Amino acid sequence: MIRVAILGQGMVASHLAIGIERIKQGEIEPYGVPLARYKLPYRIEDIEIVVAYDVDSSKVDRSLYEVARKLVGETLPIPKTLKDVYVREGIHLGSLKGLPFKATGLEEKMSVREAISRLVDEWKELDIDVVVNVITTEYGRPFNTVEALEKAINEDNREVLTASHAYAYALAMYSKEHRSAGFVNAIPTPLANDEGVVELYRKTGSIVLGDDGATGATPLTADLLEHMAERNRYVKFIVQFNIGGNTDFLALAQPERNLMKEHTKSRIVEDILGYEAPHYIKPTGYLEPLGDKKFVAMHLEYITFNGLQDEVYVLARINDSPALAGKLVDLIRLAKIAVDRGLKGTVYEINAFYMKKPGPSNSKAISKIQAYNLLIKWLGQ
Amino acid sequence: MIRVAILGQGMVASHLAIGIERIKQGEIEPYGVPLARYKLPYRIEDIEIVVAYDVDSSKVDRSLYEVARKLVGETLPIPKTLKDVYVREGIHLGSLKGLPFKATGLEEKMSVREAISRLVDEWKELDIDVVVNVITTEYGRPFNTVEALEKAINEDNREVLTASHAYAYALAMYSKEHRSAGFVNAIPTPLANDEGVVELYRKTGSIVLGDDGATGATPLTADLLEHMAERNRYVKFIVQFNIGGNTDFLALAQPERNLMKEHTKSRIVEDILGYEAPHYIKPTGYLEPLGDKKFVAMHLEYITFNGLQDEVYVLARINDSPALAGKLVDLIRLAKIAVDRGLKGTVYEINAFYMKKPGPSNSKAISKIQAYNLLIKWLGQ
Amino acid sequence: MIRVAILGQGMVASHLAIGIERIKQGEIEPYGVPLARYKLPYRIEDIEIVVAYDVDSSKVDRSLYEVARKLVGETLPIPKTLKDVYVREGIHLGSLKGLPFKATGLEEKMSVREAISRLVDEWKELDIDVVVNVITTEYGRPFNTVEALEKAINEDNREVLTASHAYAYALAMYSKEHRSAGFVNAIPTPLANDEGVVELYRKTGSIVLGDDGATGATPLTADLLEHMAERNRYVKFIVQFNIGGNTDFLALAQPERNLMKEHTKSRIVEDILGYEAPHYIKPTGYLEPLGDKKFVAMHLEYITFNGLQDEVYVLARINDSPALAGKLVDLIRLAKIAVDRGLKGTVYEINAFYMKKPGPSNSKAISKIQAYNLLIKWLGQ
Amino acid sequence: MIRVAILGQGMVASHLAIGIERIKQGEIEPYGVPLARYKLPYRIEDIEIVVAYDVDSSKVDRSLYEVARKLVGETLPIPKTLKDVYVREGIHLGSLKGLPFKATGLEEKMSVREAISRLVDEWKELDIDVVVNVITTEYGRPFNTVEALEKAINEDNREVLTASHAYAYALAMYSKEHRSAGFVNAIPTPLANDEGVVELYRKTGSIVLGDDGATGATPLTADLLEHMAERNRYVKFIVQFNIGGNTDFLALAQPERNLMKEHTKSRIVEDILGYEAPHYIKPTGYLEPLGDKKFVAMHLEYITFNGLQDEVYVLARINDSPALAGKLVDLIRLAKIAVDRGLKGTVYEINAFYMKKPGPSNSKAISKIQAYNLLIKWLGQ
Repeated sequence: MIRVAILGQGMVASHLAIGIERIKQGEIEPYGVPLARYKLPYRIEDIEIVVAYDVDSSKVDRSLYEVARKLVGETLPIPKTLKDVYVREGIHLGSLKGLPFKATGLEEKMSVREAISRLVDEWKELDIDVVVNVITTEYGRPFNTVEALEKAINEDNREVLTASHAYAYALAMYSKEHRSAGFVNAIPTPLANDEGVVELYRKTGSIVLGDDGATGATPLTADLLEHMAERNRYVKFIVQFNIGGNTDFLALAQPERNLMKEHTKSRIVEDILGYEAPHYIKPTGYLEPLGDKKFVAMHLEYITFNGLQDEVYVLARINDSPALAGKLVDLIRLAKIAVDRGLKGTVYEINAFYMKKPGPSNSKAISKIQAYNLLIKWLGQ
Repeated sequence: MIRVAILGQGMVASHLAIGIERIKQGEIEPYGVPLARYKLPYRIEDIEIVVAYDVDSSKVDRSLYEVARKLVGETLPIPKTLKDVYVREGIHLGSLKGLPFKATGLEEKMSVREAISRLVDEWKELDIDVVVNVITTEYGRPFNTVEALEKAINEDNREVLTASHAYAYALAMYSKEHRSAGFVNAIPTPLANDEGVVELYRKTGSIVLGDDGATGATPLTADLLEHMAERNRYVKFIVQFNIGGNTDFLALAQPERNLMKEHTKSRIVEDILGYEAPHYIKPTGYLEPLGDKKFVAMHLEYITFNGLQDEVYVLARINDSPALAGKLVDLIRLAKIAVDRGLKGTVYEINAFYMKKPGPSNSKAISKIQAYNLLIKWLGQ
Repeated sequence: MIRVAILGQGMVASHLAIGIERIKQGEIEPYGVPLARYKLPYRIEDIEIVVAYDVDSSKVDRSLYEVARKLVGETLPIPKTLKDVYVREGIHLGSLKGLPFKATGLEEKMSVREAISRLVDEWKELDIDVVVNVITTEYGRPFNTVEALEKAINEDNREVLTASHAYAYALAMYSKEHRSAGFVNAIPTPLANDEGVVELYRKTGSIVLGDDGATGATPLTADLLEHMAERNRYVKFIVQFNIGGNTDFLALAQPERNLMKEHTKSRIVEDILGYEAPHYIKPTGYLEPLGDKKFVAMHLEYITFNGLQDEVYVLARINDSPALAGKLVDLIRLAKIAVDRGLKGTVYEINAFYMKKPGPSNSKAISKIQAYNLLIKWLGQ
Repeated sequence: MIRVAILGQGMVASHLAIGIERIKQGEIEPYGVPLARYKLPYRIEDIEIVVAYDVDSSKVDRSLYEVARKLVGETLPIPKTLKDVYVREGIHLGSLKGLPFKATGLEEKMSVREAISRLVDEWKELDIDVVVNVITTEYGRPFNTVEALEKAINEDNREVLTASHAYAYALAMYSKEHRSAGFVNAIPTPLANDEGVVELYRKTGSIVLGDDGATGATPLTADLLEHMAERNRYVKFIVQFNIGGNTDFLALAQPERNLMKEHTKSRIVEDILGYEAPHYIKPTGYLEPLGDKKFVAMHLEYITFNGLQDEVYVLARINDSPALAGKLVDLIRLAKIAVDRGLKGTVYEINAFYMKKPGPSNSKAISKIQAYNLLIKWLGQ
């Protein structure tokens, strides 16, 4: 069994919880779980979500069932088993600032250090294996050293601390004091790309996977660019629009948060092609009725043999949250496998396939298909 | 130097001849040549087209310059050096039947066996290294044994013999009598997939690469399906339309010829996904003003995590002939390298990346990105 | 009240029956009914389907509820009121030939003349106002004169008679013997474009509307071409693909039936643009999992100011049957209004907007937006 | 003859000048000129561009030939006749502020009132008929009264005055002092929508047409929405992205200027549909290699009959400047015709078809096809 704590009980976490239960009950096939067809040391059915944290006060103290019913509506059956797991109050640190939610955070009643200690205690009691971070995209920068991160916590510096960093620090403390565990960072805040965080995880014998779960159009763009690179076609430009109606797109309408996404998305172009093809790749809008099924439009032009020009267009309507939830089903199991193998710090072979900006910092973004080969080899399959 | 004979001086062969000369003269970059960035034993500049064969009587005895001017028009500069290479009369065997061209063939004045001997003599005189088959798509089936193929030639059985088989037989005789050489089959007629032909090449110390050069939408479809398979998404269906205005699309408007393409295109679905997803993948029309720049429309639906459904659409305008010409620049060099290495028969590691239906027969169609890894490894790069 | 008989109880007729009942019960808004926002002499709620005819033996003697449940599945609620209306055996005359259905027809037990008389008797008893023809696309040509049509019936010439002509003749006899009524022909068989049929309707005081209900991509193409024409852009070519998974697409996979559609679709190009722009417009394929929601891909290139070239692409996923059903809701009411006004023969002002090939024969296909203005004026709105 | 002064010698003005000369010389057909096929009192050949104004110091005192060569490059032949027309220094008033151009303006050396007088004098000397405003999109609001506008000029209030208002005022003075003339406003600054400007034109016997020339995706969106409205389909949402690489897209990357476009584009949705369908319609990006050929992606979903949902996608690559230039060829002639007819103020029947935000203010945006009918009727054709 893998005992999991969720950070951010939104659409992704709800789809994750619903999907795992439906698979356990034999209701659906494990489509969208990349490694479902491989025999791993842990089955999907071994995953047990035991607690969730959130700072939206309409979710705190509610069951996952109640939260899922509200977010997902009547379109999917919500398993009754989710009535037994509850959302607890987490760390806010401004991660919902400016968004239309009433937010509450542990750090309102105590210091950040105390809030972290409280989480560590709760996780010890629950005997957690893996923590999954799927809070709303926040603005944040790396600390680069363990010292800088600890200084910010010791000084209770709420200006520079992000919720993700506080959570990640808590998991490191848990690993040090209790037993080795894993942290999956599915949002853009640099953790697996923060040398300070990775060093801390190395020292405490824990694993951080990240950053920014690779879903939506970015992996498709990566593979399309690889397709061009392998044929030595010269990409003149690439345009990629995204628009959606879920909370994440609403959050990305704030320029600072949008910047976080633009960073993780743009790097792939030069990394894969070997040159900086002009590109416009960013989340471009929020439109409520699109809901969780975003619209992606892509266009690229390239030079083919004999100096002639070709054009390609890609359009897609993609369920945003389930795409990430399916990958989390693997990441939870891979984090546990990495811990079991005694690894420490981060694991590029996992990050390269599952993340938009695979850590450690300065590692190259490779095409997802190349990364898949790397992953399968790492697994020994 | 690699001395090349072309079979079928159409759009593809014209782009090949023009492109190689322009690269030699430093006019253009070698975009669209997959291995241009790798250091191979032969450079692009080492390729020398020394002769071409055709059965369209308006081309026979004309220079490649004249033919290219007529086909490509004023849109590209035609290198003057192409004035020195001439088109000779080739073997027809009905390969232009039903199309609006006045056709002529050596076999009208002699037996097929005699026509083959004549070609062998010409190739000896020219000291050919590689023969490239880019005649119009014809209807043809495999002979399966060397005996069946030789019987058809000995009995002058023009009903079952295709022009491609006759040409391929000539190259085998040339290899046996003169020196080892390579045959690149860029059209659907099964040669590398014909056990009889491959056996003949093994015996005569020659190399056949084929079948059906992988250009246009098929490699993109293959990579898109691989993208889905690696995420364990369940493809509900896939639709792919193609329409163009060149001779090949005109030829494919004839049902028998169309069938040849449909075969080579459809197999990828089951091979890559592991199940037979419903699909409609075939050349669907001819419309003259599209010219050589075909229009491709693709649509697929798949099941993602939690049983939800996503949709993807791909559109493209692609220069049909240059795409294949760019790959021939590699295939000519790879055929020569294979011959130099003393290999005999066919080479799956080359075919898998460059061909729609990679020989030998019953070998699996893998995604082009997986095939690319295989190719690079084979090259020792 | 308008009492309606349906010919061909397939997907379109099922959506028509379900939709009207759901509108009556206030369950849904009348979206997709063009004139729903106008005040006509008849409301949607005035329509009463009293009988249906089919030749698929699995439908005959079943209720509309049973047929709808089987065709539409669980995706829509089927109103219980449809349990009271039954499918009777109709006239076959080969209209399902070659399709995977067990067919049965009145004319197997009697002459066509007798079958027609029987229908007339049934309609008299039911006091029908409007008959709607939505049988599967069949191959058929115009008779051009009343005499030719009557000769075929008198001689029981089953080679040349179509089911649609037999049904249309029956309605004319009904009008003559009982009272004026209307016939809505939503399929390509030429009726409103058959001078013989129109003459017969003029004589018998009845109304025929047709031919081939304008749904799917054709009206959109018409309006797009009008958009180009009004800006004096020169259309270089237009491509339009269609693929679907319902019975009509299966039927159109037969070349003769396909030809019927191609005719009605292609004429719009020259009629609207004023010149014959090269085009490829036809139903291109059948793929079962697409079901009733067809996929349309369109591409056109045009010359804009200063001789430059622009490109447009349109993609759509469209529910095929509901689109036609929504228009039938208007056509039934318009046929009755035309009869009430004492009109005889056919009505171009109605046909022009609702039909792909608006009768009478040799009338021009105009853009649907121009036709809409004409219609509104005719209505006196 | 119609003697024309151009304001803003950018891409649009260059295409206008080149295109008219090429039509005069019989080199090209007048495609993209909506009324080219109609017989108007003035032919295209009657248009004579006699002067242009700009504030980009690299253009001032250059010939239209030199400017066109630099902007359009080698892709089009530039008529030699353009060597005889020169660019003069115009009014800046911040219209290039923040853009990467060295700007210069008459008002740097004198008051705005004096600059206006100088223009009036020049136009008298040149005996101008029509002035065309195609300067870069600027931020500006209506003055609403003649008094407010005149007050700003008298007080030399450069904060509130736009270049467009100053130019428009000059034309009014010219009409009053010399003879009636027309002003075509092809950019978003409200002139035909400014009650003050229209009142001034009424008093001075001049004509202002505007605002914001309807090119690109907006007219297509309008016609697509009309298509939906006429079928009573319920539009759930509409998304429209635009990206280009010309100066106008660069300017629109500035939020204030972008806002001007968003206003003129969004109003069509409610005006045509009759309800405010959720929409995201705005210029979304600048990417240099796209140049003048912008990329448009559109997506909409609607409810069809029986409550089912359909989806439509539109993609286009459109030459931005020639599209507007072709319409200016009509607008110049229509402005002159309106003046000849003795009209004063603005003309809705012209604006409705040619403008994104047709004046006078508070007039409805109707679909372009409806507007076309209105125009043809106004012309008496």
